[in-house]
Amino acid sequence: MNFCSQCGGKTEPRIPKGEDRERAVCTQCSTVHYLNPKMIVGCIIEHDGQIMLCKRAIEPRYGFWTIPAGFMEMGESAMQGAARESHEEASAHVRIVAPYAHFDVTHISQAYILYRAHLVLPKEGPAFGAGSESLEVKLVRPSEIPWGELAFGAVKQALELYTEDVASGRYRCHIGSIHREDGRFVLKEHIALPVG
Amino acid sequence: MNFCSQCGGKTEPRIPKGEDRERAVCTQCSTVHYLNPKMIVGCIIEHDGQIMLCKRAIEPRYGFWTIPAGFMEMGESAMQGAARESHEEASAHVRIVAPYAHFDVTHISQAYILYRAHLVLPKEGPAFGAGSESLEVKLVRPSEIPWGELAFGAVKQALELYTEDVASGRYRCHIGSIHREDGRFVLKEHIALPVG
Repeated sequence: MNFCSQCGGKTEPRIPKGEDRERAVCTQCSTVHYLNPKMIVGCIIEHDGQIMLCKRAIEPRYGFWTIPAGFMEMGESAMQGAARESHEEASAHVRIVAPYAHFDVTHISQAYILYRAHLVLPKEGPAFGAGSESLEVKLVRPSEIPWGELAFGAVKQALELYTEDVASGRYRCHIGSIHREDGRFVLKEHIALPVG
Repeated sequence: MNFCSQCGGKTEPRIPKGEDRERAVCTQCSTVHYLNPKMIVGCIIEHDGQIMLCKRAIEPRYGFWTIPAGFMEMGESAMQGAARESHEEASAHVRIVAPYAHFDVTHISQAYILYRAHLVLPKEGPAFGAGSESLEVKLVRPSEIPWGELAFGAVKQALELYTEDVASGRYRCHIGSIHREDGRFVLKEHIALPVG
């Protein structure tokens, strides 16, 4: 943030009155600009004991696998956003079943909000396919997840817990934060709620 | 967003290549500026069958009551932010007990992420008090909540469900979205998870 989005003036870091941290403040019109974490919404799409993975056709992490997920848009709910991303990235229609995870990834200020969803089969035509941001989309059993080729730490964490949940036969909803420590990702503040 | 925060050039609404909606795009350096929903993190702080309310000393909704909550900051987790807000607004130290709600308020693109927390009593001195953003802070029984003087619809929705949960003796975690329809707030996509 170098310039004010309101008036185009130069900004500089200042601690506004009554606050305890630096913000980008406009030197011309004094507007205070706040930066806040962004939400990433997505789905673990289930079908016949398998889940849907997409091979990324865009950076970051081109060629790596992930679940359908992306930045939440203005005016939509997290569930609507998760369903939208499933359609955009995997041409899949889904029915959200339950919340699955809320992981705050603190070092990049992103909150992953993930849901379990069921694939809704169309009356005719393919049930899913690669959207413009995917090279390939496929259904895999939990045992077939390509752990070394996953794009994002938060998705890997969610799929590890998902694999545990499937093995135990009890789905949970996982809350927590993912921190980078000594080059590794560590899940903290982990709370697992039973899903009725 | 009138000017580019990168170079100070004028922006104009354009649909970037490969996207389906207008963004503010810089006419000078072509940077695409994205707007995303913001997260509001807060606590229902419990103590001796009561919960903590703060009377707002700032706009919006000066003089109305709410729970300690505010915008999540970069680099913190939602739980850390909820505890920080409890300290800033009510000078209270808390221990987060469980997630309580995630409500997307779609018409203002805000996500309320609320936790139940217990008040941690200090070795000496007052357990809580009005921070700079509060006129007054007090503990109330659910039956004493001033329903007509609450500041925000999402907090009112959370406290209504909380009051139900207390009456039934079973806490839940509530997920859903709050939409404005015909001047009223309606909770949709409501999923209630049992809390262990």
